[in-house]
Amino acid sequence: MNPMLAMIDLEALIESRNFNAVREQTRNWSAADLAELMEPLSVEKAAVVFRLLPREQAADVFSYLSEDHQERLLKALGREDVANILNAMSPDDRTSLLEEMPSNAVQHLISLLSAEERAVALKLLGYEEDSIGRLMTTDFVRIRPHWTITYALDHIRRYGKDSETMSMIYIIDNDDKLIDDLRIRQLLLAKPDDKVADLMDSRFTALKATDNREVAVAAFRDTDLSALPVTDNKDNLIGIVTIDDVFDVAEEEATEDIQKIGGSEALDEPYMKIAISKMVQKRATWLVILFISEMLTATAMGKFEDEIAKAVVLSIFVPLVISSGGNSGSQASTLIIRAMALDEISLADWWRVMRREFFSGLSLGSILGVIGFARIIAWHYFFGAYGEHWFLLALTVGLALVGIVLWGSLSGSMLPFLLKRVGLDPATSSAPFVATLVDVSGLIIYFTVAGLILRGTLL
Amino acid sequence: MNPMLAMIDLEALIESRNFNAVREQTRNWSAADLAELMEPLSVEKAAVVFRLLPREQAADVFSYLSEDHQERLLKALGREDVANILNAMSPDDRTSLLEEMPSNAVQHLISLLSAEERAVALKLLGYEEDSIGRLMTTDFVRIRPHWTITYALDHIRRYGKDSETMSMIYIIDNDDKLIDDLRIRQLLLAKPDDKVADLMDSRFTALKATDNREVAVAAFRDTDLSALPVTDNKDNLIGIVTIDDVFDVAEEEATEDIQKIGGSEALDEPYMKIAISKMVQKRATWLVILFISEMLTATAMGKFEDEIAKAVVLSIFVPLVISSGGNSGSQASTLIIRAMALDEISLADWWRVMRREFFSGLSLGSILGVIGFARIIAWHYFFGAYGEHWFLLALTVGLALVGIVLWGSLSGSMLPFLLKRVGLDPATSSAPFVATLVDVSGLIIYFTVAGLILRGTLL
Repeated sequence: MNPMLAMIDLEALIESRNFNAVREQTRNWSAADLAELMEPLSVEKAAVVFRLLPREQAADVFSYLSEDHQERLLKALGREDVANILNAMSPDDRTSLLEEMPSNAVQHLISLLSAEERAVALKLLGYEEDSIGRLMTTDFVRIRPHWTITYALDHIRRYGKDSETMSMIYIIDNDDKLIDDLRIRQLLLAKPDDKVADLMDSRFTALKATDNREVAVAAFRDTDLSALPVTDNKDNLIGIVTIDDVFDVAEEEATEDIQKIGGSEALDEPYMKIAISKMVQKRATWLVILFISEMLTATAMGKFEDEIAKAVVLSIFVPLVISSGGNSGSQASTLIIRAMALDEISLADWWRVMRREFFSGLSLGSILGVIGFARIIAWHYFFGAYGEHWFLLALTVGLALVGIVLWGSLSGSMLPFLLKRVGLDPATSSAPFVATLVDVSGLIIYFTVAGLILRGTLL
Repeated sequence: MNPMLAMIDLEALIESRNFNAVREQTRNWSAADLAELMEPLSVEKAAVVFRLLPREQAADVFSYLSEDHQERLLKALGREDVANILNAMSPDDRTSLLEEMPSNAVQHLISLLSAEERAVALKLLGYEEDSIGRLMTTDFVRIRPHWTITYALDHIRRYGKDSETMSMIYIIDNDDKLIDDLRIRQLLLAKPDDKVADLMDSRFTALKATDNREVAVAAFRDTDLSALPVTDNKDNLIGIVTIDDVFDVAEEEATEDIQKIGGSEALDEPYMKIAISKMVQKRATWLVILFISEMLTATAMGKFEDEIAKAVVLSIFVPLVISSGGNSGSQASTLIIRAMALDEISLADWWRVMRREFFSGLSLGSILGVIGFARIIAWHYFFGAYGEHWFLLALTVGLALVGIVLWGSLSGSMLPFLLKRVGLDPATSSAPFVATLVDVSGLIIYFTVAGLILRGTLL
């Protein structure tokens, strides 16, 4: 103990209500020293000192107090003082405080934080980014089964903060375990002297705080409730998630998926607000990956350089033929990505999807193949184009199209499964990504078909 | 009048409570004839006849009655009888009935319909597909400003159907105009003898039934309410939209956008449920449009056939160079499409977006240009590839990439504006669509740059 501390009799100053002297005395001590000075004080006197301290200093001092003292002090301080201290505390100190508190106290303390601080607090409390814990609000009403309806309604009137809070009421047992939910209307219509327990059916849906927020989106998709309760691993009720927050999450998730499908990283900020340098960075990553992958087309084309030199006409159809594979692949992958996001398709469905895409790809390829074939025939008759082997060329393009579109549909639809299987986001199989993959394989299919059909004539 | 009708004295039969005879007599008459027979009856007696008629016949007869008689009869019949008749009426007859009724009666009648019939009824009442009117539910509670709190709460207990209905209470004036909304908590906390008017602040958000449902999505994005009131063109309250329905709409809209961005028509059905033939059709449309557009690449390549014949090495980089433009275009268009869907960007922002995309495109193009340039230099040094004019070739590819990526970003970002400006869905500027557009123009940029740099050497 700092020997100088012994000279300060805070207790006497407080008893004589000499608050200016307290301010003077406390101004220049370190937080750790002040905490030491306050430990022996009664909770009431310590609370007085806290109210006299500047906000930041109070928070600092508080974090140096023993857990026991902290807890008692929080009870003694008024709601506003606690809020001031908590909001001014450094996040890690606050987290260690919160980690030590019983779950109902944590919940109360978190509710005192500003929206920003609450987000931080919940983050540090161990809920991962994108977990339901982050979406939680602690503004909700919980009642006990043995209460009468009148008592419960009275409690709700006092503690229900807004209509969302009040539309669903949660029932907890003596261990704070969630045991049922009730619509407020059930309470309003019940006989005043009945017990809450009389209304219970023990059927309810609860979310886990540690689950991914997409689970919450799916849960709200399946229900018409405006709020769902959130429990911790011990099934204790620790918060609720309201549909308006989940609505925002669903919109964000869709935005992320769309941006990924478009071939960039998710921006995570509105287009008009994000710094151009940051946006370029997020777009450049994928653009460079795609560019480097697409370099394989140059390698593949290089392998077929002799064929091209012999039959320049073949190169003319390269962009047409390979882009068709990319297009059918983009269609397939985006359909699958979205169906996965909506829980319409799970990993186990890959075989059924593959069969669907086999038939779709074959049909689509045949349609494009016929059009491509007809295009070359027509240009031959009308413009005399494509030399003496026009028919074989038409056949090459037509058949290559069937193969490439089929291949595009299959690989475009299977890629999201593959990505999901290895734990990546299926939306990473963006339209440009699939197009790039299919471009490379499309070239190989095209020149292979050409080799088979045109060998001995053009090649 | 059918002369035989004169022989039937329904009135006498009803008065003598000879209901079997009424059934006998009414069985074989046409609906039009029976209606004529019933016109002179008192409303009470007509109601008795209706209850004796089989459901379908009752609905038919009802639709033949004069509007005046219909209205009086609806009032005389019990809720269940009215529901039976309404549900059994043919949709168009019902619509003409509803069109003639005062708005509060329409609302009451619609609430009697089954969910299916209600959807049909609302549709035929003139709300366009995708309008807010289609999303509306008529389960809501309205109170009057001069009521006491006690009376209002009593009314709510009686008519509030579920928690969603009850979280927001709407106040209407004597003309049924919406004049305010209240959270139920405000009512619960108010003094029982106060007037509803004492709580009013006349601040509320209302939706128009004729507005597009995307307006509802945007409105809920900006508020944390769980329901919003819907009014007709006279500001009369005709229903509410709840956030869970709007949640579904937002998900559907995102699905449509994603599917369009992927280059197919919106499926409108889950991927696993839609018939393959139907899916092929929806995908084929765009695939064929893209294929035919992409044919321009064959035309463009044909124009440069001489250049390719002289410098086959140029053709090797065609897929690489043009796909980069497509990729940057896909990125730009999807970012803009989503920002538009979220109301972050409006048509007026086109110039600001263009400036952003100019800088982004230039940066991205330079990055890819440098990589492309380096790739050719490297392959020259390591593999002795690309002949004596390797440096000029590297320069051609590098500079073409800058131009093509810049062009891709600009056209990809402006296309959604153009589509929106002419009243089409911006999401139509799908990744494959943009890629196709940029492929064609990319070829022209590439061979033009090649012509400028390689003239006199390779070309």
